[in-house]
Amino acid sequence: MSDDHHPGAETAGKSRPAATVAAVRAAVAGHAPDFLADLRDWVSIPSISADSRHHADVVESARWLAEALRRDGWPLVEVWDTTSAGPMLPAVHACWPAEDPDAPVVLVYAHHDVQPVDPVTAWDHPPFEAVLVGDELFGRGVSDDKGQVLMHLLALRAHLDATGRTAPAVTVKLLVEGEEESASPNLARLLADHADALACDLVVVSDTQLLGRDTPSVCVGMRGLADAEVVFHGAASDLHSGQFGGAVVNPAVALAKLLAALHDDDGRVAIPGFYDDVRDPDPAERAAFARLPFDEAAWLAGPGAGASAWGEAGWSTLERLWVRPTVEVNGVHSGYTGPGVKTVVPRQATAKLTFRLVPGQRVARVLDLLRDFVAARTPHGVRSEVRTGRGGFDPAVVEPGDPATGAVVDALRMVFDHDIVPARSGGSGPAALLTDALGAPLVFLGAGLSGDHVHAPNERVAVPLLHRGAEAAAVLWDLLPGRLARAGGGTEEHTA
Amino acid sequence: MSDDHHPGAETAGKSRPAATVAAVRAAVAGHAPDFLADLRDWVSIPSISADSRHHADVVESARWLAEALRRDGWPLVEVWDTTSAGPMLPAVHACWPAEDPDAPVVLVYAHHDVQPVDPVTAWDHPPFEAVLVGDELFGRGVSDDKGQVLMHLLALRAHLDATGRTAPAVTVKLLVEGEEESASPNLARLLADHADALACDLVVVSDTQLLGRDTPSVCVGMRGLADAEVVFHGAASDLHSGQFGGAVVNPAVALAKLLAALHDDDGRVAIPGFYDDVRDPDPAERAAFARLPFDEAAWLAGPGAGASAWGEAGWSTLERLWVRPTVEVNGVHSGYTGPGVKTVVPRQATAKLTFRLVPGQRVARVLDLLRDFVAARTPHGVRSEVRTGRGGFDPAVVEPGDPATGAVVDALRMVFDHDIVPARSGGSGPAALLTDALGAPLVFLGAGLSGDHVHAPNERVAVPLLHRGAEAAAVLWDLLPGRLARAGGGTEEHTA
Repeated sequence: MSDDHHPGAETAGKSRPAATVAAVRAAVAGHAPDFLADLRDWVSIPSISADSRHHADVVESARWLAEALRRDGWPLVEVWDTTSAGPMLPAVHACWPAEDPDAPVVLVYAHHDVQPVDPVTAWDHPPFEAVLVGDELFGRGVSDDKGQVLMHLLALRAHLDATGRTAPAVTVKLLVEGEEESASPNLARLLADHADALACDLVVVSDTQLLGRDTPSVCVGMRGLADAEVVFHGAASDLHSGQFGGAVVNPAVALAKLLAALHDDDGRVAIPGFYDDVRDPDPAERAAFARLPFDEAAWLAGPGAGASAWGEAGWSTLERLWVRPTVEVNGVHSGYTGPGVKTVVPRQATAKLTFRLVPGQRVARVLDLLRDFVAARTPHGVRSEVRTGRGGFDPAVVEPGDPATGAVVDALRMVFDHDIVPARSGGSGPAALLTDALGAPLVFLGAGLSGDHVHAPNERVAVPLLHRGAEAAAVLWDLLPGRLARAGGGTEEHTA
Repeated sequence: MSDDHHPGAETAGKSRPAATVAAVRAAVAGHAPDFLADLRDWVSIPSISADSRHHADVVESARWLAEALRRDGWPLVEVWDTTSAGPMLPAVHACWPAEDPDAPVVLVYAHHDVQPVDPVTAWDHPPFEAVLVGDELFGRGVSDDKGQVLMHLLALRAHLDATGRTAPAVTVKLLVEGEEESASPNLARLLADHADALACDLVVVSDTQLLGRDTPSVCVGMRGLADAEVVFHGAASDLHSGQFGGAVVNPAVALAKLLAALHDDDGRVAIPGFYDDVRDPDPAERAAFARLPFDEAAWLAGPGAGASAWGEAGWSTLERLWVRPTVEVNGVHSGYTGPGVKTVVPRQATAKLTFRLVPGQRVARVLDLLRDFVAARTPHGVRSEVRTGRGGFDPAVVEPGDPATGAVVDALRMVFDHDIVPARSGGSGPAALLTDALGAPLVFLGAGLSGDHVHAPNERVAVPLLHRGAEAAAVLWDLLPGRLARAGGGTEEHTA
């Protein structure tokens, strides 16, 4: 498993320090068995942040990670389980200062909480007993995001081993959150509380996927996320459908009409003003997407088996996932849903909605537009309510020509020995929040795959890609001092 | 409670045998305390047929009724818990033969199973501990339908007491079903199996409501009921909305579009062909409905508090409830409906639908039309399924000029000392099945109220109306021999 010697690695290109890649690769290979054992061990802790019955497991997961960091020699390791506003599920912070006090400071962001596993019967293996099948490890969190966290521990060991240094070429800070799968409700406060400790010159988000094993890619944008629950209230209680049906407004029918009106016939979101702030991708980026070897049939044959491609007219599937905003109905509930028949007019109907946002859009604005839309479409006889969450993520985007992203592309090209194509993430995370709060540019360095079944049963990760990701990070720490102007952060937290 | 002496009862009208009404009323008053105690006792048995955890209670409820009938002296009492096709929740059959072997035979149909009680927190009193507040008894089943069953036991005691007879003026048979709230899946078979024992000259259905305390009414029609569950299937599992949302068909959105298309802008059911077989009420009946003192505000102030009147354009609220067919959405479920956010594209979406049918319509035909409608509106990328139940009720109607209904009207007029207006039931039951299977005409004799919160929390019944209903039945048994031609049934089952 650990020996995925790459035949191209020795053929040095003009900008590739081949010896360093080879040394890094050898170091990664040496640590690979420990890396796999660690990941299996950590995955056994069901750190589901959405489920309060598992909050003790999230605490245990943070403790596990802090212990692993200390064992690896990270000079500073802290578990943060409160903000100035109150308790939170613990985040882990670590820092390994550079030899050179003037070296750039990078902050790696990732998370150690995981998604729920229901329906657990749909898993081929128990989700918290990771199983290796071929070169893929199956288990909840192996890809999203514990595998990508441990990738950075492996990277730093390899970076030091390969160079013989005792400290990295850049100061590496980690922030591994425990609430990301719950939309990071305390992250903004945490970033403000620890502004000094987290000060940095670059944010590295490691929670994304590569396009394919044979299509290494660099993520240059992540969609935002806004969530809301729409409730339509009718009578004070469920009504007998024989004594009221047909003569009063049925909230389930009224809500269905609202949901049916979310999209027009061309698959565009029909909420007035929804596209006003959208910045369309430029033609060059669209042309680059069109050249990607995206296999729609393979995409649908994975977790999407049984589904059919559909979406906004005039855009490809990849564009619909990466650069177009959406509204999705995640859940609907109304009235009686048990076995058999219950002849009621439901007293209320509820829909859970999430939006994926693209550059130009903002969470707060989109939720305002939704409120207007619901108010305008609430029929007489129904009282409507729009409940919104505490957070949401604004969209994040980086320019392919950005120097830091250029360094990531170079690092990836060196370890994959392959052209690196630009890609985006259809998913969401607090990337915009991090870059805004810390005032530092952003890059994405992820090593999952889009077919990893994240958030679904049978989550998996290709172990060799985590090795490649670790190699890329180890190389990147070497590349950055020459690429990145050091603008801030650095010394004060070395002694924090 | 038991003394609801009616000041009009002594002022004999020209067709009113006042002595008989007075004697019946005195007898009912004498038995009133026992009647109330019995009803409270029986209501304590939670005979919920829809919930298999309560099936033992349905059995116990049947045993309780059989015991009460034997105690009252009914010569034949049987509990039927199987059909030729297999087991069923028990029905109770009883027969008290007339003195005159040539007297007409009536079959009273009612039921002893009750609706579920959830949400139980919405009840002001525990649903199975009946509480008397003023002259109303609160508890599950007090109106629908245990109160109306015991009304007939009280009626027969009063009928015998008031006349001094030891046997009634007509042969009275009872069929008290235990599966009515589950759409009577075994009733057709039961009727066929016991055709001889149930042979009769008239079916009396006692499971309806009076228009108001001051508006005594006779039911002349009952809507039918058809039920179906529509399921839209998408992918094999829930999908990550960031990796698939906006680029695949969402079954919840597709189902919302189907539900939104069930009605047109005029509130008419938009399923093609739905109205083809509907027989509209004649102008005289519509004019009679228009003269009824229906108080829409009071109707909405009861269990419908918070709802607003709405329905098919061109028809009044009463007409929408009584003579117009409907489709109702009773429940919807799709995707994630728990706390917080889960960013999924649901793998499927389900809606429970019921139709109320009016004369001319048939269950099977309407379900065929639904299947066509769903098939025509299933979008590419969704697989649809229409699941239908085992039963359903065809609509039933009687003519106000029918001799048997004329006898019911006369009996009600005598005991209420008030004009009796024609009304219909917006609810449904197996009336059409009974009259078709037994080849006998049909009347309705019910004593609930439309404000009884049946099928809802805080079900109640006005005890004085149950007394009036018992008096009316006791009088009716005296009237029928002169009104009803004896066509069949009668002797063979006296010795059954």
